[in-house]
Amino acid sequence: MTVFPFTAIVGQDQMKLALILNVVNPSIGGVLIMGEKGTAKSTAVRALAELLPEISASQGCPFNCDPEGVLCTSCQEIFHKEGRLAVEKRKMKVVELPLGVTEDRLVGSLDVEHAIKRGEKKFEPGILADANRNFLYVDEVNLLEDHIVDLLLDAAAMGVNTVEREGISFAHPAQFILVGTMNPEEGDLRPQFLDRFGLCVRIEALNERQARKEILKRRSAFDADAGGFLARWADQQRQLAADISEAQKLLPSVTVSEEILEKIVDVAMELNLDGHRGEIVILRASQALAALRKNPVVLLDDVRDAAALALPHRMKRLPFEEMGSETDKLQAALESL
Amino acid sequence: MTVFPFTAIVGQDQMKLALILNVVNPSIGGVLIMGEKGTAKSTAVRALAELLPEISASQGCPFNCDPEGVLCTSCQEIFHKEGRLAVEKRKMKVVELPLGVTEDRLVGSLDVEHAIKRGEKKFEPGILADANRNFLYVDEVNLLEDHIVDLLLDAAAMGVNTVEREGISFAHPAQFILVGTMNPEEGDLRPQFLDRFGLCVRIEALNERQARKEILKRRSAFDADAGGFLARWADQQRQLAADISEAQKLLPSVTVSEEILEKIVDVAMELNLDGHRGEIVILRASQALAALRKNPVVLLDDVRDAAALALPHRMKRLPFEEMGSETDKLQAALESL
Amino acid sequence: MTVFPFTAIVGQDQMKLALILNVVNPSIGGVLIMGEKGTAKSTAVRALAELLPEISASQGCPFNCDPEGVLCTSCQEIFHKEGRLAVEKRKMKVVELPLGVTEDRLVGSLDVEHAIKRGEKKFEPGILADANRNFLYVDEVNLLEDHIVDLLLDAAAMGVNTVEREGISFAHPAQFILVGTMNPEEGDLRPQFLDRFGLCVRIEALNERQARKEILKRRSAFDADAGGFLARWADQQRQLAADISEAQKLLPSVTVSEEILEKIVDVAMELNLDGHRGEIVILRASQALAALRKNPVVLLDDVRDAAALALPHRMKRLPFEEMGSETDKLQAALESL
Amino acid sequence: MTVFPFTAIVGQDQMKLALILNVVNPSIGGVLIMGEKGTAKSTAVRALAELLPEISASQGCPFNCDPEGVLCTSCQEIFHKEGRLAVEKRKMKVVELPLGVTEDRLVGSLDVEHAIKRGEKKFEPGILADANRNFLYVDEVNLLEDHIVDLLLDAAAMGVNTVEREGISFAHPAQFILVGTMNPEEGDLRPQFLDRFGLCVRIEALNERQARKEILKRRSAFDADAGGFLARWADQQRQLAADISEAQKLLPSVTVSEEILEKIVDVAMELNLDGHRGEIVILRASQALAALRKNPVVLLDDVRDAAALALPHRMKRLPFEEMGSETDKLQAALESL
Amino acid sequence: MTVFPFTAIVGQDQMKLALILNVVNPSIGGVLIMGEKGTAKSTAVRALAELLPEISASQGCPFNCDPEGVLCTSCQEIFHKEGRLAVEKRKMKVVELPLGVTEDRLVGSLDVEHAIKRGEKKFEPGILADANRNFLYVDEVNLLEDHIVDLLLDAAAMGVNTVEREGISFAHPAQFILVGTMNPEEGDLRPQFLDRFGLCVRIEALNERQARKEILKRRSAFDADAGGFLARWADQQRQLAADISEAQKLLPSVTVSEEILEKIVDVAMELNLDGHRGEIVILRASQALAALRKNPVVLLDDVRDAAALALPHRMKRLPFEEMGSETDKLQAALESL
Amino acid sequence: MTVFPFTAIVGQDQMKLALILNVVNPSIGGVLIMGEKGTAKSTAVRALAELLPEISASQGCPFNCDPEGVLCTSCQEIFHKEGRLAVEKRKMKVVELPLGVTEDRLVGSLDVEHAIKRGEKKFEPGILADANRNFLYVDEVNLLEDHIVDLLLDAAAMGVNTVEREGISFAHPAQFILVGTMNPEEGDLRPQFLDRFGLCVRIEALNERQARKEILKRRSAFDADAGGFLARWADQQRQLAADISEAQKLLPSVTVSEEILEKIVDVAMELNLDGHRGEIVILRASQALAALRKNPVVLLDDVRDAAALALPHRMKRLPFEEMGSETDKLQAALESL
Repeated sequence: MTVFPFTAIVGQDQMKLALILNVVNPSIGGVLIMGEKGTAKSTAVRALAELLPEISASQGCPFNCDPEGVLCTSCQEIFHKEGRLAVEKRKMKVVELPLGVTEDRLVGSLDVEHAIKRGEKKFEPGILADANRNFLYVDEVNLLEDHIVDLLLDAAAMGVNTVEREGISFAHPAQFILVGTMNPEEGDLRPQFLDRFGLCVRIEALNERQARKEILKRRSAFDADAGGFLARWADQQRQLAADISEAQKLLPSVTVSEEILEKIVDVAMELNLDGHRGEIVILRASQALAALRKNPVVLLDDVRDAAALALPHRMKRLPFEEMGSETDKLQAALESL
Repeated sequence: MTVFPFTAIVGQDQMKLALILNVVNPSIGGVLIMGEKGTAKSTAVRALAELLPEISASQGCPFNCDPEGVLCTSCQEIFHKEGRLAVEKRKMKVVELPLGVTEDRLVGSLDVEHAIKRGEKKFEPGILADANRNFLYVDEVNLLEDHIVDLLLDAAAMGVNTVEREGISFAHPAQFILVGTMNPEEGDLRPQFLDRFGLCVRIEALNERQARKEILKRRSAFDADAGGFLARWADQQRQLAADISEAQKLLPSVTVSEEILEKIVDVAMELNLDGHRGEIVILRASQALAALRKNPVVLLDDVRDAAALALPHRMKRLPFEEMGSETDKLQAALESL
Repeated sequence: MTVFPFTAIVGQDQMKLALILNVVNPSIGGVLIMGEKGTAKSTAVRALAELLPEISASQGCPFNCDPEGVLCTSCQEIFHKEGRLAVEKRKMKVVELPLGVTEDRLVGSLDVEHAIKRGEKKFEPGILADANRNFLYVDEVNLLEDHIVDLLLDAAAMGVNTVEREGISFAHPAQFILVGTMNPEEGDLRPQFLDRFGLCVRIEALNERQARKEILKRRSAFDADAGGFLARWADQQRQLAADISEAQKLLPSVTVSEEILEKIVDVAMELNLDGHRGEIVILRASQALAALRKNPVVLLDDVRDAAALALPHRMKRLPFEEMGSETDKLQAALESL
Repeated sequence: MTVFPFTAIVGQDQMKLALILNVVNPSIGGVLIMGEKGTAKSTAVRALAELLPEISASQGCPFNCDPEGVLCTSCQEIFHKEGRLAVEKRKMKVVELPLGVTEDRLVGSLDVEHAIKRGEKKFEPGILADANRNFLYVDEVNLLEDHIVDLLLDAAAMGVNTVEREGISFAHPAQFILVGTMNPEEGDLRPQFLDRFGLCVRIEALNERQARKEILKRRSAFDADAGGFLARWADQQRQLAADISEAQKLLPSVTVSEEILEKIVDVAMELNLDGHRGEIVILRASQALAALRKNPVVLLDDVRDAAALALPHRMKRLPFEEMGSETDKLQAALESL
Repeated sequence: MTVFPFTAIVGQDQMKLALILNVVNPSIGGVLIMGEKGTAKSTAVRALAELLPEISASQGCPFNCDPEGVLCTSCQEIFHKEGRLAVEKRKMKVVELPLGVTEDRLVGSLDVEHAIKRGEKKFEPGILADANRNFLYVDEVNLLEDHIVDLLLDAAAMGVNTVEREGISFAHPAQFILVGTMNPEEGDLRPQFLDRFGLCVRIEALNERQARKEILKRRSAFDADAGGFLARWADQQRQLAADISEAQKLLPSVTVSEEILEKIVDVAMELNLDGHRGEIVILRASQALAALRKNPVVLLDDVRDAAALALPHRMKRLPFEEMGSETDKLQAALESL
Repeated sequence: MTVFPFTAIVGQDQMKLALILNVVNPSIGGVLIMGEKGTAKSTAVRALAELLPEISASQGCPFNCDPEGVLCTSCQEIFHKEGRLAVEKRKMKVVELPLGVTEDRLVGSLDVEHAIKRGEKKFEPGILADANRNFLYVDEVNLLEDHIVDLLLDAAAMGVNTVEREGISFAHPAQFILVGTMNPEEGDLRPQFLDRFGLCVRIEALNERQARKEILKRRSAFDADAGGFLARWADQQRQLAADISEAQKLLPSVTVSEEILEKIVDVAMELNLDGHRGEIVILRASQALAALRKNPVVLLDDVRDAAALALPHRMKRLPFEEMGSETDKLQAALESL
């Protein structure tokens, strides 16, 4: 299926930036995209796939095991037997989690036929296997059933998916970048789940006539001749992929000064955030931003832009206070940095 | 079963037009028909079947794979082995989705007997397989169970139906034109589902004595002698089928001016629609209308008529405001175009 | 089991007429009998069985296939192989649908044992198979579970019952005359289901001392000596069966004038009915009435009597308005015809 | 287990009479016993077993088929093969229906092991089989789950229990005398179910010191030496059993005058009962009473006493009116007969 | 596991007495212990086990059949074959019913493996089997699921547990002494269940400093050296066991005068109890008390003390009246005896 | 996976102390950690694992049986056969209980494949097996499903996990130290469950700028170079492990004076605690504290500090009284000791 190019999406810069930062530094922990219907949320996430870099994985491993990280039960056995793991390059992926997913499909299941025929048990990988070290995308994440959310939270908290079925036990790493979209008019996420998203952006339909016309023209052009359209955007796509790749290389050497650390703490204290996770995410996102801006040092602007993405869903909700005042407070705190 | 002819349905022109536009351009995305009991809704949709054109499909494929589009797992294997796919012509169909449908029946299931007997797994296609590239019709769509709606939305969003059962995995394209009917007095659709319908029409029983008598006479004549009745309407049926076929051929060459694009954006902005999907549907429907009217250029009237079908279910619902005022606003916006 | 004779039921003439009209013309679509406990509702429906005529069916077919109508999967195969279907005569039946019915029992199921033993799949017919072209009787129809109602509505809407289980697919015609009883004090039917009943009668316990004493005497006589009682009513039973049979033969030639059609439309418009189904049912029922009255032309009285049976459950329910006023309005409209 | 003798129960004459009348004439249709905890309700029903007469049944039939009545599938086969059914005498029983009963246990199930081993299907009778032509006793009948009540009502309405499981179909008569107890403080019965009980009695703990002391003494004596206690009451038990047996023989010849029939109708009309079932039950119970009183003609007193048992649960419940006034009205109507 | 000795429990004399009375006379029917968390309720019930006497049981029978009482299906077969049952001595036990118990675990289940391997069906006893003629202990009895309570009530009412699974039928006696604890702040028992407990005690944490210190010291000593602690309490334990054994032997010969019976009736009538069960329990408990006090005749004090245990949960709950007034009324009634 | 070191956690001393006390004396009964999101709750519990001592266990036993304590079914068999159990040393563990846990995974299940292949039944240990004599950690313990809580409470109450499945019965000790975290804003624990936690601490994000900066720096340093970070904290980790080990050895010889016992009783009585469990926990925790402080005698300060951990969740909740006042009362009671 030909996919609309990421760079051809009109506007929605915050959303696009949040997605890119997670590619640069997956430990940021994903993005929650809140907004009304029909605002290119799904288009953007699917388009992201084309820009993703390659990773090294254990050869043939259906769990994308990092040969130098946590290993699945099967890679561990190979490593113990042969003393080493063969390595192959793979492109990162966007794995979709359908709303109607079953528990077996998510965490994997036992291959019963294999067991009966060959007299040995075999684990059939699920979506969490596929999602390891990749993006895991859930459209309308607030409509997921509670027991599926529990399984996601369990896997996210432990970084490992352990499955036990009829006496077979299998474990594999399950570290995914969670991207969810939701329409806030259709119900909330529970706080525990909300907190698992590193960043959060709110998007709306564009309000300028020219921009909307441009959307219509591009969509119409893509509908009429997808191949030609992609060709016209190929350069821009290549450039963005190169920028991301460069930022990934620069990231480990980006440094943070004592003053910057203090600024991060100040904004968290002023906004009276729950716990310390907000500060850690701001730090990671501002380092990724600096790398993307080809800057070896985190600047105050990086902190400000990172905080604008890391904090909207971490503000304490006061009763009888409007959402707006919350946003104003965040805005004010960022400006006064 | 002999079916009442589409062209013999008295009145209800908006509903008939909306259905025909979707035959001309399936990317419009279906129709939601809202109205009271006993207003020929089901009759019209079933009657549509006779007017549907032929499509090219991969020979023998139970998923109606388009040989030049996305392929099912099985067609992919054949293509990889033989380098080509044999092609056959098929008539488009109206596939019905019963309210009492089970998940297995909808998405397909594993043929257990085959697996046990032949020692190999086989996928048993479900309704989504049958519905690929066809009309999928749901009577009383607002009474569908939530988990079935989730599966429909998942398939519609991805355009693909992926089934995993006991270690067998099968995927096939699932691009259907969704037609639903509902009685608005019996509950709503959730916004996400509502938004998936390209067009929306409201219908009521006719109010003129002559028309109602005509309905009674035609029904009575059909009951008494279906064969004779069909014969009397054969010409009109043939003519409409020919018109549709011609419009399909004309569609790719229908052009849209900058002014027309601006008009579409204007109406969307004035009505303060969520997202941009409404504009895209208006564009597609007005192109289909122009083609049906044998016009190589989209005119303002086409936009006006298309918007009247594409927008009724996309208006923002304001609290304490009556439905009526909504309709008035839409009417006013269309007139001022 | 010996059954109380239909003609020995004291009073309740509307109910008895509504049942008989459906025998004469099954396309009227059944009867809903509303009334308090202990008013011979069940007795009447069961007693009806004795009066039912014979129909022609495909020999040995468990689905009562009409050799000249829609055929079940199995009759189709026989027809394709042998070019013809053997025919046999059967008596129409009253099939009962118990409240505790399961989905498998209603729509049929796979005969698993047969599959395992003979290596071939076999469909085990359900109640819908038995009910094809017969009466389907549900006592306390408003207590049916929702998913069973869905299955009934699906079958009624399509006229066909399609079953898919583990890779076996079977379809058979499922055109039944639905008769339901309900106590309106114990909850409503949903509008969709209500609308499926062609006619509707309300019954109450008789109010005259003599009639009640007669009921008691007949019941007591039947209890004491069922055989003798039946013998005493044999003539009346035979006469009614003959009248019904004659009416069936007369029905196709009963004609309707333009004026009569207009009267039917008038009453429907005056009463502001939803949709057009009410008019169609009045037409069919008045033709059956004319036939029963041995009249080759529908008279105004036939329309009046048919409408009194076809409309009570189709009146729009206005909030804050009493049931009574509804009945009055219907009464007035019929009188002014 | 030794059971406390029926005749040794102190007081509660209405309850004891209602039970006995049902033995004399099973077509009365059972008893509902309403009353507070610890009032010998269960004791009485269990004690009844000893007084029950013998019935003729088809030899070895687990469904107690009456060789001259409706036959089970299996007896029908034997009859068709051998032309006759061997007969044996059995004692009527009190079969208990536990609250935690499952559907399979109630209606019967397929004997899977038998099917696998012998290659043939066998029906495993359930409680309804056991209860055919016997008493079926439900303690706390208002706590039965709804789907179990549905199954009971289905069986009671049709007089037959039809079971279909995986392609096996079996039917047997299921005509039982339903006896239920309930504590009215713990919820109601639904009207449909209430109406199935022929008679209804309300009982309370005795209020006289001597009677209560007698209860305590008899219970204590029974606890200390059950055997001796039974011996002391043997004569009274024998006498009552003989009385019942005699009444059964007399019953068919008991006659009812026109005046008596009118009296029955009068009381029903004055009390404005739903339907006609109340009158039929009064008639049957007064005939049983006359027989028990060794009287060949029903007297006014028999009607009065029968109505006092047949009507308490059939009075229309008026809102804002106390239970007491209901009872008063019944009392007044009976006195004025 | 070493268990804290019953006699070393500080205070809570009512609870300890109620438990002991049930050992002396199991027909009293168990105890319900109501009280706040952490008041040695569970400790006391578990400690009771050490004091329980031996009973005679059919050799090897997993249902503890009394060779001279009701027999299980299997003991019946042995008895019919061999004409006698071998007997063995067993110690009574305290069987625990976990809250998370399943129906199969409670009533027993079919041993499927045995069936497949040996070609014969075998019943796998459940907790009710284990509990026959023993104590059945439920901690937090008010949190039991409703369907489990139904099964307990069914078994308690019939004294027999009948299991039918896939064509196997097994019955065994199930007469247990039910002991439950509950925290009244966490919900009620339904009246039916409450009434099944013979006695009821309310307990609270002790209020005297010295007693609480003693509790702490004993617990601490037991924690530090369980063996030594048990040795120090061995004499007291032996003495209590001997007292219980003696009382059991004396019980059958304890007599009750007419005056005592009248006193029991008086208190029940004055307190306006539901039914007669309260009086019977008072009688049985006062006989056990007399036996424990080595008295061959029931005295007024025995009645008073027995009533204080037998009545708290049988008082009618009046609306708008405080629990306290209930207790006062009971107190007053007992004093005025 | 490298884990953040326990000693490098900034602040949260109460939480760290409560965890350490449970290592020193497991009979204290676990900790409930209440606090907002992102406050290192999970980090601390997981980090605890590194500090845990070794225990002696029966060789190869998957249930960690203490060779001198309660034995599992399998160790009992070995002991009976061989007269002794081989012993091995194991490190205590922190076992995690995922929210989405199933009943089978928690209590263990039958290994069906083993049963089919080898003809013998085998028990597949669950999480309770793993958790015996170890820490059992539940994140968001207040979101556990009720039936899982029931199973935990059953196991905790009996100290044994008994599993019965299809005729196999297996029991093993299940004595775990329960550690739970919860966000009090997301619902409560039921009193019964709350009471099972020995200690309870409330934690909040730190409020000092320097401390928060330190958290950020340490986290950032650990992210950048986990190995180096661990090396820098190795000494502190070793020291704490040594302190714990020493305290364990000292514990049995720590003595408590009469005055100290009285003080414990005083504080419990003043605070009007439910039952006596609070006093027992204070006693055990103050002994562990004394041991940790290398003191052979419990001092008043140990009692005060232990009570501050043992009582917060045992205070009676008064309606209309604020949480704060509760804490104040506890504070005041502790100070006045």
